[in-house]
Formats: sequence, C-alpha cells, structure tokens
Amino acid sequence: MGKVYEATVTAPVNIAVIKYWGKRDSALILPTNSSLSVTLSQDHLSTRTTIRASPDFTIDRLWLNGVEEDINASKRLVNSITTSRKLREALEEKQKQDGIPAESVVPLSQWKIHVCSENNFPTAAGLASSASGYAALVSALGTLYELPQTTSELSRVARVGSGSACRSMFGGFVAWQAGMADDGHDSLAVQVADRQHWPELQALILVASDKKKAISSTAGMQTTVETSSLFAERVRTVVPQRMEAMKAAIAKRDFEAFAEITMRDSNQFHAVCLDTYPPISYMNDTSRAVAGLVHAFNSARGRTAAAYTYDAGPNAVIYALKSDMRDLVELFTYCFPREDNILPDAFYPDPFGIFDSPEQAGHRLTDPVVSKLASTVGKYSAGSVRRIIHTEVGDGPRVLPVSQSLLNDVGMPKRARE
Amino acid sequence: MGKVYEATVTAPVNIAVIKYWGKRDSALILPTNSSLSVTLSQDHLSTRTTIRASPDFTIDRLWLNGVEEDINASKRLVNSITTSRKLREALEEKQKQDGIPAESVVPLSQWKIHVCSENNFPTAAGLASSASGYAALVSALGTLYELPQTTSELSRVARVGSGSACRSMFGGFVAWQAGMADDGHDSLAVQVADRQHWPELQALILVASDKKKAISSTAGMQTTVETSSLFAERVRTVVPQRMEAMKAAIAKRDFEAFAEITMRDSNQFHAVCLDTYPPISYMNDTSRAVAGLVHAFNSARGRTAAAYTYDAGPNAVIYALKSDMRDLVELFTYCFPREDNILPDAFYPDPFGIFDSPEQAGHRLTDPVVSKLASTVGKYSAGSVRRIIHTEVGDGPRVLPVSQSLLNDVGMPKRARE
Repeated sequence: MGKVYEATVTAPVNIAVIKYWGKRDSALILPTNSSLSVTLSQDHLSTRTTIRASPDFTIDRLWLNGVEEDINASKRLVNSITTSRKLREALEEKQKQDGIPAESVVPLSQWKIHVCSENNFPTAAGLASSASGYAALVSALGTLYELPQTTSELSRVARVGSGSACRSMFGGFVAWQAGMADDGHDSLAVQVADRQHWPELQALILVASDKKKAISSTAGMQTTVETSSLFAERVRTVVPQRMEAMKAAIAKRDFEAFAEITMRDSNQFHAVCLDTYPPISYMNDTSRAVAGLVHAFNSARGRTAAAYTYDAGPNAVIYALKSDMRDLVELFTYCFPREDNILPDAFYPDPFGIFDSPEQAGHRLTDPVVSKLASTVGKYSAGSVRRIIHTEVGDGPRVLPVSQSLLNDVGMPKRARE
Repeated sequence: MGKVYEATVTAPVNIAVIKYWGKRDSALILPTNSSLSVTLSQDHLSTRTTIRASPDFTIDRLWLNGVEEDINASKRLVNSITTSRKLREALEEKQKQDGIPAESVVPLSQWKIHVCSENNFPTAAGLASSASGYAALVSALGTLYELPQTTSELSRVARVGSGSACRSMFGGFVAWQAGMADDGHDSLAVQVADRQHWPELQALILVASDKKKAISSTAGMQTTVETSSLFAERVRTVVPQRMEAMKAAIAKRDFEAFAEITMRDSNQFHAVCLDTYPPISYMNDTSRAVAGLVHAFNSARGRTAAAYTYDAGPNAVIYALKSDMRDLVELFTYCFPREDNILPDAFYPDPFGIFDSPEQAGHRLTDPVVSKLASTVGKYSAGSVRRIIHTEVGDGPRVLPVSQSLLNDVGMPKRARE
C-alpha cells in the first residue's frame, strides 16, 4: 500500500461579541459590517475532520457525524473544496516551474477526496456547528494540500463556506474585517489577541429549550438588510465605533467595557431583527429571563461582572471572569433547575470543579448577596434551560496525528452509522 | 339645596398605530415625535368621571373605581386640575370685564371639587386606563367650568396629565402633533378623520397573561432616549415619513397600507426598547405567537388582512375589517384556548354576534383555508390569552345627563368600596 495523503484537524466554535448580520454579496459571503468574536475551547466544543485524497477514490464523499451526505448538495461546500483545489493546483504548477521533476509533484488537486467530520458536542445542544465545521474543512484541506497561504488568507476560503467560519480559523479574539473589495480578497479574519492574552475570561452556554423552528439566519439577515429602516444606521455608525471600542477593551482586559459592548451589540442585533418585516425573533421568554438575571447579578455585584450574548436562537452565552464564575454557575443552576430526568452531570458537567459533587448543582448558593438575589428571583420552570456548558477562551485549529484519523486504512469512516 | 355644579362624562381608550415613545420635556410631557391613534368604542372600553364643585367642599377629593385616593399624590393629576382652574379663573375674569355683575359670575375656580371615576372594563384586563382617565377628567372639568377652549386646546391639558390622553379627547383617527415650542402650546391632538369615516374598521384586544412586572413606560421611554443608538434615526427620519403615509392610508381607507405601517411601527417601537440599555421587553412568547399567527393569516389570505400592535405590555391589539373578523375570531379562539375555569362569554363576550352560542368560541372554524392554518399551527397552552375584547372605532368624550352621575346628592360616591 502506497503513501497515504491525509490530514486530521480539529477546529473551534466562536461566539461573536460584535455581531455579523447582513451580506453585501451573498455569493461571496461579504458582510455589511465587520464583526468580532471569542474562540471557545476545543476541549468542550469542536469539530474534528479527516480528509484523505487518493487516486483510488472515484468520487468525492462526505460523512457528517457518521452519516454519509451528498457532498454536492451544498453549493457552499463545493465552493470551499473547489477554491482549495485551485490553490493546490497553483502550488503544483509553481513546483513544476521551480524545476521540481513532474513525477515528484503529487497531483493531489486532481484526486478525489473522502471527508469525515464529527462534532464533540451533541447536535441536541442546538449550537451552530457550521463555523467549526467549515474551519475544520478548510484547515484540513490546507494541511493536506500543504498550501503556503497564511491563516488569514485561508480564512477567506472558510468564509465562502460559512461567513462566521472565517473567525474559527484563529484562537483567542478574532476580528472579521468586512473589507471593501468586490472580489472579497480583503474580507478576512485577523487575530486581535491570542488565548493567552486574557486567561481569566470564561464562558457559560445556557442551552434553552425551544418549541418553535428557528428562521434560517441566511434568509433572515437579507430580509433585515432589505426591510429594516434602522439597520443602515447600525452598519454606518454604530458597529464601526463598537469595533474600535471592543478592540481597546480587549487590549486593556477591561471586562466591564467588554461586557457592556457585548450586551449592547447582542441587543441591537435582535432589535434590528425585530425591526425586520415580517419581524424575526430568536430570543424567547427563557432568553429574556437569563438576560434579566445577568443585569440583576451585575446590580447585586455593583459592577458589570457578567455579559450575555445571543445568536440566531434562544441559547445564551455568558462571558465572565473566572473569579465570578462560581457565583454565576450557582445562580443559574438554582434559578433554571434541570428536568428531573436529566442527571446533574449531564445538565452541568462542571469541568472546572465548581461543585464538590454533581448533586450540589442547583442547590448550593455560597455568596449571601447572590443567595438573596436567587431567592428573590425564584426558580423558573424546570427544563427551560436544558444544559449548561462551562468553557473558556481557546486556541485555533489543531493538526492531529494520524492515530486520530476518522478514516480507516481503505479511507472509509471508522465509526459509521446507518 | 342650591344649584348643583357638576359634570359627568365618559372618555374612550385609544390605541396608537404610530407609537409615542420618548419625551423631549418630561415636566410638560412634550414628545420626541408625533404619534397617531385609533379611538376605540366606549361601549366596550371607557372611563366615566363625575366632577362636582361646591363651596361646601373643604378639600379636593378623588375616588377611583370606588376607592378614595390621595388627589395630591400625583403631580400630573394636580397639574391637570390646576391648569383647568386657571382657564376657569381667566373666564371668570373675562366675564367680569365684559360687565357681567360679579354676583352672576359663579366662582367655580375657587371651589374645591369631588372627582369620582370608574372604568367599565376590569383592571384585570391589563389595559392602560390613564389615557381614558385623564381625557375624562379634563372633559368633565371643561364641561363643568364651561371653558371656551376648543377640544384641541383642551387636549394640551389632558397631555400634561398623561401624554397619550390627549389623543382620547377625539373620536375616530387622531394625531398628536409633537410640536416645536418649548412651552408646548403646539403639542396637541387633532382629529385626522372621524369615526364615520371608516366604519368597517374593527379591533380585537387579546389580553395575554404575564408573570413578570412590566417596566413603567414613563421610566422606560427616557432610558431609550438616553441609551438607544438607533432611537434618533427613528425620530429623525422614520416617524415623520410614517405619519404622512398613515394619514394617506386612512384618507383612502387603504387597509393594507394602514396594516403594514401599523405592524412595522409596533415592531420598531419594541426594537428600540430592546436597543435600550438595559434592554426593555414588553412582548412575551404569547405576544410573539399572536404576531406570527397574524402574518400566517395574512399569507393564507394572500393579502394583508389583519394588523397587530403592542404597547408597553404583552397584550395584542388586532385591527381588521369587519369582513375578516369572523375568521380572525374563530382562529384566535381556536389557537389560544380559554382556561377551563373561564366561561366562554367571559373569555369572548361576542358583542357583534360572531357565534350563534358562546360555546362555539374555540370550536368553530368556518373557512377551510383558516381551518387548515389553525390545524397546522395547533393550540397554544390554555390561558396564555386570558380574554378577547372585540370592539370598533368609537367617538370622543360624551357628556352624560345628571341621572348618570357617580355622586349622590351630598357629593359622595354612590358606589363606594372600602
């Protein structure tokens, strides 16, 4: 058996603190405004992808979480793969021009590929996996094809797959520069600060149960661009100011400024959704209860100690410093009790050891002020928050050893489901 | 017993289709933008107020729904009464100047008053009664004092009591002109069209149950003025355009235009509330479900056949033409079932005879398309809508005969509660 040409990588999820909403070019996925996000730890949330290229493969194939999908069904997926192949093809051409003997130039760009991808978090968690998914795809192709492009340059390839995926190409704090060019060459991700810059920053994801089917963000954001009479003002004046203020807050590790801008921008994103016709609403009563509790917690603390942000769904992401996390976790697990049939450790896995035992979650309130707040607020109906994920700022895509491959020796998934 | 100086009036509720939100002067209640409302029928929603002035009264007294309140507790109430007394005083002065013998000039401005006020709708309905209440107060004082001012001029007095009350001084379709002057003399209500102009227009009020305490609109709107970065754009460009478009739609009885502007403006009002910091949200999941159902109904109809609007609370007000009301009532009573312990006629009194019997409410779906929509949507949890009030466009304040007085011969409430 000849040499195996394969790459396995993992890529992280990112949560925007300055929101991306609205495209100026839907085909190239060029945004109406810049955005900024925090990359979350891959220990808790990540997509792993193995891609192998082989002259023995007759067609491109794709498996997502063990189930084969039609790789040509998604135009965006085809775009990302085709763009990567073109970059590889250019590299092979250059190698030949540089006098490398043709037989030593591996024609990977001409070979079919098998793509196998898995998330380490349940789809039930209701977390958008397209960002980590496309970042993993492009990182794996970049590694497999030995592309010379920088990560920022490769982030353009991830962008054409799924806009916010470009931000998952870096760890830490990442800006997606909207850019000006029609061809989108300047619409890419840049790292604002790496994960080591602010190690105290942590995040909680409160997964809210929701009956109603969410509106697709792809369709929703264009309706906003076309119908909201307030959206242009957000793009023209508000976001540019917030991008600068947010970068400054991160540079200074000024949590209060970071938190207030984060909450204001999340609220404004949902405000322009509501100003859309017909209106779009992603937050539900649970989302609003969580936001209200965060403001109440901040009042009780006498400072902005926590920030919420919501994407195109009811789940809340809470940012806070490590030193405030114990009280926040105690408050949320108390006020949003788990359903009886969910084991405590499934409801809140407690990776940072907040509780001595899983059973304490929802029962212990250490800080007297927080305890007073909790009893004032009371408990919301059990199960309105289905799961709480506690994580921190993380690094960018990782290349894994061949032992971590998702494909077996003949290039088929090791774990396949029918 | 000498002549009794007394007036009894009723005044209507009004529901804005272009929303009032934000003051440029809190003391005089001068708004940041003009607004426009529809006056609803007093047969279903009104405040009745009797005011008597007598030299025998030692202090001003006030009874609301049978319970005595401190008449000096509310600065706004004192303002309205004081302003009215000054107008009466000026009238008395003029009468003297005109040579009317002093003994024939009744010094009503110097006498204390008894004010007795009752709403014909349960407070439980959660409907703001300040508009009808202050309009009734000022109308009664204007009648009692025989003030020569026009209704528009008197609407300024109602305005200093409660901003939107100025719009309840007229029937039909009413604009509150924001005005420019610092003293507020040009910030008053004018009638755009009377109730006879568009007799086909009707309204449904869906009273939604709500756990959480609402934010006071007085406090809330100023926080929006101070913190929303989108609010200025609404005031500067959006509302002025919508005021003109709405007046044109009413003049032409163009329901589809009327309905779309109404929904867009309600959504934008709640959008700027959400863009406020900390955010304000008045709509809950039931409110959003009702709005979604209205858009679904319009899609099923293939035209904009109904419009929703929401004020500072979760209740929905639905505007539609009489010809679409049967299907709307059948749809809402089906999708938002009453709680078992509420009698059908209390849930939906059916003043226009939609159903042959109260028991049909929630069970009959005549139109096949609406029936299909209803079964697709299904039923929301019982009691999420507590009551449905069906009404129509109504007239302005009415002066009632002495037989309708709320005060007995000694000037005390006929119906008093302890």
